[in-house]
Amino acid sequence: MEMLTPVFDTYSHIPIYQQLYSYIKDEIKEGRIPNNSKLPSKRKLSSHLNVSQNTIQAAYDQLIEEGYIQSQEKRGFFVNKLDHLQSIKVIKAEEEALAPLNFPVSVYDYSYHGVDFLSFPFDLWRRLTKEVINEYDREILQLSSSLGYHRLRANISSYLHQSRGVNCSEHQVIISSGTEMLFQSLIQLFDENYIYGIENPGYERLNQLFRGNRAAFTSIRIDECGMIPEEIERFQPNVLCITPAHQFPSGQIMPINRRIQLLNWANQQSDRYIIEDDYDSEFKYSGKPIPALQGLDENEKVIYMGSLSKSISPTLRVSYMVLPAHLMQHYRKELSYQLCPVPMIEQKVLCRFIEEGYFERHLNKMRNIYKRKRELLVDSIQILHPDMKIFGADAGLHLLLQVPNRMSEEQLIEAAKAMGVRVYKCSQYYSNPIDIPKEPILLLGYAMISEKEIVESCKLLKQAWFPSLSNYTK
Amino acid sequence: MEMLTPVFDTYSHIPIYQQLYSYIKDEIKEGRIPNNSKLPSKRKLSSHLNVSQNTIQAAYDQLIEEGYIQSQEKRGFFVNKLDHLQSIKVIKAEEEALAPLNFPVSVYDYSYHGVDFLSFPFDLWRRLTKEVINEYDREILQLSSSLGYHRLRANISSYLHQSRGVNCSEHQVIISSGTEMLFQSLIQLFDENYIYGIENPGYERLNQLFRGNRAAFTSIRIDECGMIPEEIERFQPNVLCITPAHQFPSGQIMPINRRIQLLNWANQQSDRYIIEDDYDSEFKYSGKPIPALQGLDENEKVIYMGSLSKSISPTLRVSYMVLPAHLMQHYRKELSYQLCPVPMIEQKVLCRFIEEGYFERHLNKMRNIYKRKRELLVDSIQILHPDMKIFGADAGLHLLLQVPNRMSEEQLIEAAKAMGVRVYKCSQYYSNPIDIPKEPILLLGYAMISEKEIVESCKLLKQAWFPSLSNYTK
Repeated sequence: MEMLTPVFDTYSHIPIYQQLYSYIKDEIKEGRIPNNSKLPSKRKLSSHLNVSQNTIQAAYDQLIEEGYIQSQEKRGFFVNKLDHLQSIKVIKAEEEALAPLNFPVSVYDYSYHGVDFLSFPFDLWRRLTKEVINEYDREILQLSSSLGYHRLRANISSYLHQSRGVNCSEHQVIISSGTEMLFQSLIQLFDENYIYGIENPGYERLNQLFRGNRAAFTSIRIDECGMIPEEIERFQPNVLCITPAHQFPSGQIMPINRRIQLLNWANQQSDRYIIEDDYDSEFKYSGKPIPALQGLDENEKVIYMGSLSKSISPTLRVSYMVLPAHLMQHYRKELSYQLCPVPMIEQKVLCRFIEEGYFERHLNKMRNIYKRKRELLVDSIQILHPDMKIFGADAGLHLLLQVPNRMSEEQLIEAAKAMGVRVYKCSQYYSNPIDIPKEPILLLGYAMISEKEIVESCKLLKQAWFPSLSNYTK
Repeated sequence: MEMLTPVFDTYSHIPIYQQLYSYIKDEIKEGRIPNNSKLPSKRKLSSHLNVSQNTIQAAYDQLIEEGYIQSQEKRGFFVNKLDHLQSIKVIKAEEEALAPLNFPVSVYDYSYHGVDFLSFPFDLWRRLTKEVINEYDREILQLSSSLGYHRLRANISSYLHQSRGVNCSEHQVIISSGTEMLFQSLIQLFDENYIYGIENPGYERLNQLFRGNRAAFTSIRIDECGMIPEEIERFQPNVLCITPAHQFPSGQIMPINRRIQLLNWANQQSDRYIIEDDYDSEFKYSGKPIPALQGLDENEKVIYMGSLSKSISPTLRVSYMVLPAHLMQHYRKELSYQLCPVPMIEQKVLCRFIEEGYFERHLNKMRNIYKRKRELLVDSIQILHPDMKIFGADAGLHLLLQVPNRMSEEQLIEAAKAMGVRVYKCSQYYSNPIDIPKEPILLLGYAMISEKEIVESCKLLKQAWFPSLSNYTK
């Protein structure tokens, strides 16, 4: 290699050494500078290109660092032998396959995933966050316990004890992002041959989750009290995944005797457990809240789970679980490599939100707001048609509806959609199509929709589902 | 059941109906009110207890709801038959087993997990967060794409293209919490029989992670260029997990030819992939940054991963990966049940941090700070003893050290600890004890420690490791 003659762009913001480096790199890659050839000395190239020797040195250093050339003592710089990069034919993904998922926007949406928009404590959240981001608090930037910020764990533990009757110490609490993530940890914690029993109908993500994690699961039918004991005996799961406070989607509350029966089932064998997902138990509109099943457990059989998705916001991505002491010991041994996924700033804001009594006040406020919406929705539905059947409206943030007009589930949803109202089907929550009830059932969440929208949309639903009636009454 | 006679505490803040409910519930649970017995009528009990019938009704309603009693039309209220709750003997976890993990505090800590405390942009972060928490922005409370906030994905995509030479569109970016979580998603995405090849020595959490997820893995030895091709052929992994920009812990940069060799290995079979963990590539102290391996890949073989743990803070818990288009298609089909774990407020703050140029400025600032610390540490170590050997200090936030005093790894660490200085062993990063080098190697992270502390602690290390020398020089 006698000499190199790149053309430099002196107007470019790219430094000359980088331009030289790129030029030589491309020449090597394209094979125009052959393997093992010697590059010009720094002195020669410097005078040839009229740039400083330091510039040449910097370009050569970068090439050495990336492995394109090597420096041999007293001999100079030599080009390394590079393998030829093979190319294969790749089946490209179609452009549209990666395009953003379009969520169709309806004017009125009875979505189940969300909270009342106007009631989020924006001012308070701003103030707490501002106070938490504090240059004198080193914890803000330091990884702490993989189980979560200790003071937040303590606050959640006492909240659960007081409000949900959960028996636990703060050392049993694990903070995570979303119920799915907690389930994933449990799948890793438990024996890989365990079979999980899930409610049918039930939360549809659990199917996908167990499948995605290659964990065996079996769907267990529910009656009006919850999972049917005979079905449990028949399918022999190790771990039951249940929602006793407010079964999803049916809205049923599990009575005390079924609770005892399930606990007794678990007590019969050492490899049996119950996962209690208490997903929206904060919202009960009459009487006292139903205490958690965990509070009845005296044998370390119940894993309690909850989240702040319904009580504050799903976009906080905060969930928690309470492990029985012996499982916690096991978790700390086996799974401590999993760091707590919740950002420290958010954990600290939440900690103060609970500790200083704002959470309790927020819950009381939201309970009133949702109670009003629920009553308005129930009333508006009943005005819509006297034979409408409503289920599961005593608690939570959704209700189920049967419309006496002989339309199919699909027809009901499409007719509503044509009027700009989005309601949801219940059939998606059944693992087995055989179990889907003949008479279609719809699910309406009422957390996100406003009172005004409830009244307006129910009028539209009347036109959608009972056009003849609605023409008369117009 | 003729009558019930609870004693009410009229000074209590607990409402009378709840006191009555608790009394009856306990009587039923303890068997003092037998199964199937009839409770007093509302009218009778009301006059007996001198409380309103509404109070009695509220207590009975709660008992009905929880399943303790039932109302039979025109007959009254009857106690349900309850199963007997079985008790089994539980082996309790010892109290101390659940106590918080105590991290011993050293005066001087060369921990690898952290960032420079004083340089976090507290003011800016407060301001951006305050602006993001905005009552007119509905996105703050609405679950969006399971892949992450679309604008943050776009910003990360263009940052990676410009700074790391990564070829990708925003549709290929997934945002998550921590590299571990990204690996977990990939394990679910790939065939369950895939074998993962991990670097030996390498990031120790990967062992635990693959074990925890029941994925097969094999440790592959590295030479001074990275994973050894012959070893890869020998152990036949499907997916290589490598750190080409700055091998952890050795600090080596993978030269261009080894990169080509590994890509060629992947190109030979359709079930071969490379996971490139670019964990601290932002920090290179001389020359240009080494472009990502992903930029060389033309066959959708490389999965690129990075995080903000080193560049901003580990407590943000934000990581990202770039999937080849065909894998992204697959991910969206199979794993969309996994919601993005990063809170929306934080995603929006980060989005503005990157978009408005603060991230680039922060990186430049941190590069200078860490460069100064690194030079100070290298100088201080060389003053400590002329024969100290330092490796891997060209990039990243840690370096490796060999101390020429014939102490064992354990002795070096203990002697340092006795002087109040915490340094870390490298042997923990080897999967196989046979491969641990005879001469002990220590790992010193310098991101968290201050310049003043570097100078002070190196004097203490001299006393710890070369007591005779240090007596002379005192």
